[in-house]
Amino acid sequence: MSIHSVKRHQNHLAWDNSIAPVLHIQSGETVTFDCLDASNGQLTAESSVASIRGLVFSQLDQVCGPVHISGAQPGDTLQVDIISVETADWGWTALIPGFGLLHDEYPDPALKIWKIDRAGQFAWFDEEKGIKIPLRPFPGEIGVAPGKDGAFSTIPPYKTGGNLDTKYLSSGSTVYLPIEVKGALFSIGDGHGAQGDGEVCGTAIETPVKATVRLTVRKDKPYVKAPHFVTARAAASPEEYYCTTGVDQDIREASRAAVRDMIEYLGVEHHLSKVEAYMLCSVAGDLRMHEVVDMPNYVIGLMLPKSIFTNAS
Amino acid sequence: MSIHSVKRHQNHLAWDNSIAPVLHIQSGETVTFDCLDASNGQLTAESSVASIRGLVFSQLDQVCGPVHISGAQPGDTLQVDIISVETADWGWTALIPGFGLLHDEYPDPALKIWKIDRAGQFAWFDEEKGIKIPLRPFPGEIGVAPGKDGAFSTIPPYKTGGNLDTKYLSSGSTVYLPIEVKGALFSIGDGHGAQGDGEVCGTAIETPVKATVRLTVRKDKPYVKAPHFVTARAAASPEEYYCTTGVDQDIREASRAAVRDMIEYLGVEHHLSKVEAYMLCSVAGDLRMHEVVDMPNYVIGLMLPKSIFTNAS
Repeated sequence: MSIHSVKRHQNHLAWDNSIAPVLHIQSGETVTFDCLDASNGQLTAESSVASIRGLVFSQLDQVCGPVHISGAQPGDTLQVDIISVETADWGWTALIPGFGLLHDEYPDPALKIWKIDRAGQFAWFDEEKGIKIPLRPFPGEIGVAPGKDGAFSTIPPYKTGGNLDTKYLSSGSTVYLPIEVKGALFSIGDGHGAQGDGEVCGTAIETPVKATVRLTVRKDKPYVKAPHFVTARAAASPEEYYCTTGVDQDIREASRAAVRDMIEYLGVEHHLSKVEAYMLCSVAGDLRMHEVVDMPNYVIGLMLPKSIFTNAS
Repeated sequence: MSIHSVKRHQNHLAWDNSIAPVLHIQSGETVTFDCLDASNGQLTAESSVASIRGLVFSQLDQVCGPVHISGAQPGDTLQVDIISVETADWGWTALIPGFGLLHDEYPDPALKIWKIDRAGQFAWFDEEKGIKIPLRPFPGEIGVAPGKDGAFSTIPPYKTGGNLDTKYLSSGSTVYLPIEVKGALFSIGDGHGAQGDGEVCGTAIETPVKATVRLTVRKDKPYVKAPHFVTARAAASPEEYYCTTGVDQDIREASRAAVRDMIEYLGVEHHLSKVEAYMLCSVAGDLRMHEVVDMPNYVIGLMLPKSIFTNAS
């Protein structure tokens, strides 16, 4: 479908405007990126928790690119239309020591390997318990090179994008990124099969993806100084949620409390272990800011769709 | 419908376990509360911005109650089923100096009076511009008395509820609150006709409401230590959003950036003044936590439903 492609090995491990483009295109052209998962191939469908202990951190969250778009100048905006995102037939979710919202309470590594049904676009979290996760694949990493010289880690997100880990950036959505260097230097990676708002345990359903995007330089959106996006029109989905809330003077502590309480809830009501529940929150739960103005306390909610529990209860 | 009712004047201005109940009921009974708006009647459909300057703050956010529920003991849970919430035919949205997410950037008071179409369940934000807000009425204040002695302001939310300002607590939803005192001592108020996640300018469509709730003591939910809730099954609504994001090391600053950028976007694309846009964000925009684990930066989004813009564009 695309006239251009970027291959797995054409990746880089930092946002750095000195990295040479692997491809030059015209504005409005379409590119397909073949991306390894965020472990950069260190994990496979046969991996065990020992593989988490052995992870080489400096190799994580590689991004494919960069792609140089003709005519892009600092101050312009890059419009990224997400045409399609196809997962592999497997994925993984991990607790990585030192990473995730409750990392201090979960010091030990853990790994879950998923089998992904690509035809049905779902993955069982636990088939026996009837917990089924609908797929909504998107690239966790999507960004352009920073104007500031130097090598910046691909782990944090920036105003130029990067590790946004925003679940709404699936097929049919459009992202706008502020361009800071000539040619924009666009890269993408970190395939996610499904994720909740927040990605609370630190990982989603991590999976290799083939992502096809159209890249267009826009001169008429000077107000885009950090990522903006428009979501896809989704199929109608009347939904019920179960939600826990955290109330605290610190937003982060409030978020942690909401997740902690949901983990406990899932243990009591759905008989999940704490590690299972923590992962389930990360891939299916939405962390939302219910309230941020009634000082001194914030209310943050963790909302879990009831539809993922397909056994009658 | 209810066999019990609490009237407008049966209210109080602090969460305080020493306040005598205005009503005693059995667990499982239904009560209708007739509640003035959060200004406690200081604002009316004829008010102007001068009324904001003259607001007596100590009179704000009164709650109707408290109601004593027989059999409720500390450690139990109060199940609150929201049966119905009916608004008045008018409402208000204000910028109150010192209040709201961007209060330092909006030092001047402002007031908008809304006409509410109760039959159609909507309110025009701006009929000429075609900006129409669907109603989803809910009580901003919903809580029980704290176990700790003393008078606690009704402005902040607490783990026992209070000013949760959570838009999902509309008709058909169920809230669970931790009970800390004998009889629970439930109160409710602060009617909102519509609000987005976050209530960013500090107020919603504030309106008097008649709220009918069923109050049931539960002995089987010891894990509820802060508000939990289950949302109503909503009508199917495929939705598109426009979203701005803030990326920052501080969650609050990230939230502020997302709101600030949406205000600018609405000015450029929809020709709204900054004050109008700020209010529109407060009543129709959803502030959500997209990402909280990729340190050191957070990504917070402000999502505005495109459907509120009913003029073709």
